[in-house]
Amino acid sequence: MDVAYDGTDFSGWAAQPGRRTVAGVLLTELERLFGDGGVKGLTVAGRTDAGVHASGQVAHIDVLADGWRALGDTMVRRLAGLLPPDVRLIAAGAVPATFDARFSALSRRYMYRVTDARWGADPLRARDTLAWPRPLDVGLMNDASARLVGLHDFVAFCRRKEQASTIRTLDRFDWSRDSDDVLVATVAADAFCQAMVRSLVGAMIAVGEGRRSVTWPADLLAAHERASDVVVAPPHGLNLVEVCYPAESDYAERAFRTRNRRDLE
Amino acid sequence: MDVAYDGTDFSGWAAQPGRRTVAGVLLTELERLFGDGGVKGLTVAGRTDAGVHASGQVAHIDVLADGWRALGDTMVRRLAGLLPPDVRLIAAGAVPATFDARFSALSRRYMYRVTDARWGADPLRARDTLAWPRPLDVGLMNDASARLVGLHDFVAFCRRKEQASTIRTLDRFDWSRDSDDVLVATVAADAFCQAMVRSLVGAMIAVGEGRRSVTWPADLLAAHERASDVVVAPPHGLNLVEVCYPAESDYAERAFRTRNRRDLE
Repeated sequence: MDVAYDGTDFSGWAAQPGRRTVAGVLLTELERLFGDGGVKGLTVAGRTDAGVHASGQVAHIDVLADGWRALGDTMVRRLAGLLPPDVRLIAAGAVPATFDARFSALSRRYMYRVTDARWGADPLRARDTLAWPRPLDVGLMNDASARLVGLHDFVAFCRRKEQASTIRTLDRFDWSRDSDDVLVATVAADAFCQAMVRSLVGAMIAVGEGRRSVTWPADLLAAHERASDVVVAPPHGLNLVEVCYPAESDYAERAFRTRNRRDLE
Repeated sequence: MDVAYDGTDFSGWAAQPGRRTVAGVLLTELERLFGDGGVKGLTVAGRTDAGVHASGQVAHIDVLADGWRALGDTMVRRLAGLLPPDVRLIAAGAVPATFDARFSALSRRYMYRVTDARWGADPLRARDTLAWPRPLDVGLMNDASARLVGLHDFVAFCRRKEQASTIRTLDRFDWSRDSDDVLVATVAADAFCQAMVRSLVGAMIAVGEGRRSVTWPADLLAAHERASDVVVAPPHGLNLVEVCYPAESDYAERAFRTRNRRDLE
């Protein structure tokens, strides 16, 4: 399932008792469609935090017995009428049993929107754009970001989590400025640890406004410990835009290799 | 003043007692900035209806006495901190006394966003995109729209208003479909009567889904009476994107010529 959502009014992806979450809302409507007990095991590529958006989230479920007949466009049309406007099922199709939305994923791509316009954020994009009150130098931010690309231990930019690996391959991290004074970061990696994208963005904003040097984020990386003076950027600028998977025949192999790294997302 | 707003939570532009309106919110903060009695006569290019957005609205005020020192970027920065996130002052500058935001305007340009994607509207654009449940043929819509361009009596597409002229010059009316299955209408005219853009859009949606012929909207126009079977499209897809003015020396002449047409907007 390809899923899009406006994270503003959700306490993140993961189902939590008494809270409105994307998984909770989606599962309620999937059960309405497939019948009680007709679905199980909602698994997602990236468990986004509260307030984070997705335009290209991917999840899978096991559909039992005759639920198959409701897959594809029929499922998309029926869920369009059932789901609230802030969650949309974009596409749905059958996959081999070896496919796992989380463990088969090769990479995740996020975007972060921040504006340094004097007037603040475009009112129609205020939900997914951080308004920064001081000018940002996109050249400095690109210089600093490029120094982090590659295979590194990103512990400096990860929330502490016992026994979880913080080694990741950052495939891409760059910034562009559009015509409306919005800076858009593209951040892609095999996987991210919790709050990693927002910590990276927070560090680059400090560079962009001249408060930190262009080498500072790379220095933090080299120190191999959680950097307490990195400000985690607010969630509402962040959007999970794409999850990449291997060709069909490699699902099982990929899932087998990564299943033991429970921290992947 | 160039003003942008998300119309969702406003009862339109025009100040009304007991209702949250764009003019009401803006005037409150302008008075905070310039002092009680320091501003007067908030005049706008297009008095948008409840729920309609603007990214390029234009308005003017008279600033009294020493209020001049707060104009320009200073005014933009200060109002960025005072206004709520759903209204932004994009730019502000001094103009000759002959300038009138409403009567000097040469033309207004609107956009209307509608999607016929099976899954509905992108959750992050649900506030400014109409989700249409049936496929729309953009070719038929362009064919029908082109037949309305030019100088006509648009009474068929205007809400009845005593003694107001409904003769307008429609400069542009066309549709394009972007990569995300969003159809965007561009509608430009010297001025519009009330609900005219939304009536035009409503008629074109009926053509696009095949319920009406491509000649039907032009036939309504030729009938010279309010067409009761045109459905006015919902306000949330509509955005006032630009207001055009003459070169500075022509402000006064333009305002003089148009001031007697009180229905212009």
